Amino acid sequence: MKTVSLNKYVDTVVILDQTQLPGKETYLYLTTPEDVWEAIYHLKVRGAPAIGIAAAYGIYACIQQVKTSSYPVFLEEFQKIKNYLATSRPTAVNLTAALDRMEKVVVSNPQKNIPEIKQLLRMEADAIREEDAIACRQIGKNGLSLLRSGMGILTHCNAGHLAVSEYGTALAPIYLGEEKGYGFKVFADETRPLLQGARLTMYELQKAGVDVTLICDNMASSVMQKGWVQAVLVGCDRIAVNGDVANKIGTSGVAILAKYYGIPFYVLGPTTTIDYSCPNGKSIAIEERKAEEVTEMWYTHRMAPTDSKVFNPSFDVTSHTLITAIITEKGIIYPPFEIGLRKIYS
Amino acid sequence: MKTVSLNKYVDTVVILDQTQLPGKETYLYLTTPEDVWEAIYHLKVRGAPAIGIAAAYGIYACIQQVKTSSYPVFLEEFQKIKNYLATSRPTAVNLTAALDRMEKVVVSNPQKNIPEIKQLLRMEADAIREEDAIACRQIGKNGLSLLRSGMGILTHCNAGHLAVSEYGTALAPIYLGEEKGYGFKVFADETRPLLQGARLTMYELQKAGVDVTLICDNMASSVMQKGWVQAVLVGCDRIAVNGDVANKIGTSGVAILAKYYGIPFYVLGPTTTIDYSCPNGKSIAIEERKAEEVTEMWYTHRMAPTDSKVFNPSFDVTSHTLITAIITEKGIIYPPFEIGLRKIYS
Repeated sequence: MKTVSLNKYVDTVVILDQTQLPGKETYLYLTTPEDVWEAIYHLKVRGAPAIGIAAAYGIYACIQQVKTSSYPVFLEEFQKIKNYLATSRPTAVNLTAALDRMEKVVVSNPQKNIPEIKQLLRMEADAIREEDAIACRQIGKNGLSLLRSGMGILTHCNAGHLAVSEYGTALAPIYLGEEKGYGFKVFADETRPLLQGARLTMYELQKAGVDVTLICDNMASSVMQKGWVQAVLVGCDRIAVNGDVANKIGTSGVAILAKYYGIPFYVLGPTTTIDYSCPNGKSIAIEERKAEEVTEMWYTHRMAPTDSKVFNPSFDVTSHTLITAIITEKGIIYPPFEIGLRKIYS
Repeated sequence: MKTVSLNKYVDTVVILDQTQLPGKETYLYLTTPEDVWEAIYHLKVRGAPAIGIAAAYGIYACIQQVKTSSYPVFLEEFQKIKNYLATSRPTAVNLTAALDRMEKVVVSNPQKNIPEIKQLLRMEADAIREEDAIACRQIGKNGLSLLRSGMGILTHCNAGHLAVSEYGTALAPIYLGEEKGYGFKVFADETRPLLQGARLTMYELQKAGVDVTLICDNMASSVMQKGWVQAVLVGCDRIAVNGDVANKIGTSGVAILAKYYGIPFYVLGPTTTIDYSCPNGKSIAIEERKAEEVTEMWYTHRMAPTDSKVFNPSFDVTSHTLITAIITEKGIIYPPFEIGLRKIYS
């Protein structure tokens, strides 16, 4: 079963609830804008590409409820849902990019009747997912070309198939290498506060038979110091034109450690993650989330005194100066990134 | 009430159970070697100096049970307890140093009768605690001389009064500064896996009215990137002669970040933490602890798939090349550390 899919008989988005992993494999059926918004906001579906796919199928599913034959009414309702869903998470570019693509279908087909437009919307959402899957496979191939068998690989957060379709992004070369007998030794940062590494990366890599060891985020320096890591692979939520990258909180710290220990630091993502309207990391909005994510573990046991002041950014920006290469489905981009990123665009 | 104290009427060590903080303030009464070993091993009492004091009072309390008037029997029993307690945690130098001091009292007084030796042992344990308290106050003064009012200060783990007597070590300048109206803005790394920062540093600094913000370990880079940190203060469990420092896991990572962002990185500890038999960090034994500390949060909810492979070192070694200064009660030592550390010894 996939991370995100469409049940085509009832036009409902089906997602694997990632907040319940690794304990439970629960599937949720989303039909209303509120359902989709909540699922994205509460990280039930997460990972930049998966959010994009969920939003695309989500807006398709939601718009089914709009029973009108008037194009202007349909467009207005569509944009209302679109603007609402866009507020669920600010940092990943894929969310707004997917919603923009879906909107374009509506905007550019005013001559068509509503059932035809709905049909086109489903095809567009399918295309977003299919393109993503193809991109992931190619990212895997491109990434694997930089790795050698037996390497120790450290990854942060989860950019595997749970975050994306198919192979994922950062984990794609690992899956592909596993199929080819590379025998990587993977270290997964647990990734506080929501433990996507412990819960999700461990879950999917163990399931795939990969040799993976869990560490706390603050152990990455030790593991590198011991010489156990030959490459760092991370995903990304937004790539600025100068090569600065927004990704899960803690990524910039891992990049600084990798630089210090002389370990290559690779960012992997589809070209849809590149934001050509964004000159550098300073212009990326960083989502801050609730204190309780840090102070209460699964909301069962408080981990810090009551009324603790907490700073809880969900992402950070890694300077392009710390990145060895950005690996996309269209090729591997080396510094100076601006030239390579512009080349891909043209 | 103190972190560690002796109930002199019943010769029992009383400790504040730090594993129950911040939720509960529970005091434990330790009378047997097993009690003391368990309390140290399970981090009910923790922090290098506090472990030393608990071990000193602990061996004093335990030896009360030995009812003999024979010096050789007494010495043998004493050494049995000492060797047993020394195995509770390998990394902090204070544990073995305190036990060695206590043993020296027994070994160097074979002519005295047992009650007299017991009396001397209590005086020695009192002296260890008192010297520690004086050292902490002086460390606070020395550390404060390097800070300016309004500074942002990041700290890792807990090296406050819970870890030590009085002011603590790394937190001593913060307490002293608070008394003098410095208005520091402190950031406390939560310090996975056992959350000494979230549970203990937040607890004690909030109680003292200090402006303190909790962050996950992987957010330190973000906070530094924003320019919110002007100094890092950490404690230490063992200082090698070349200035390499063993401290709570994650310390070396924070030091690398501080270096990258150009922020001074200060290590604070009493001179008892210097191990003159240890030439450099490579010769420091690093304790590894149980996987469940990482995979199970308070043993109520599993955070990773079952059978996850876990690497869980309790400490790491920070290279002397990353340390701006080592602040002791005898003065501030700058690189080259070996010269300064040898000077203090002589």
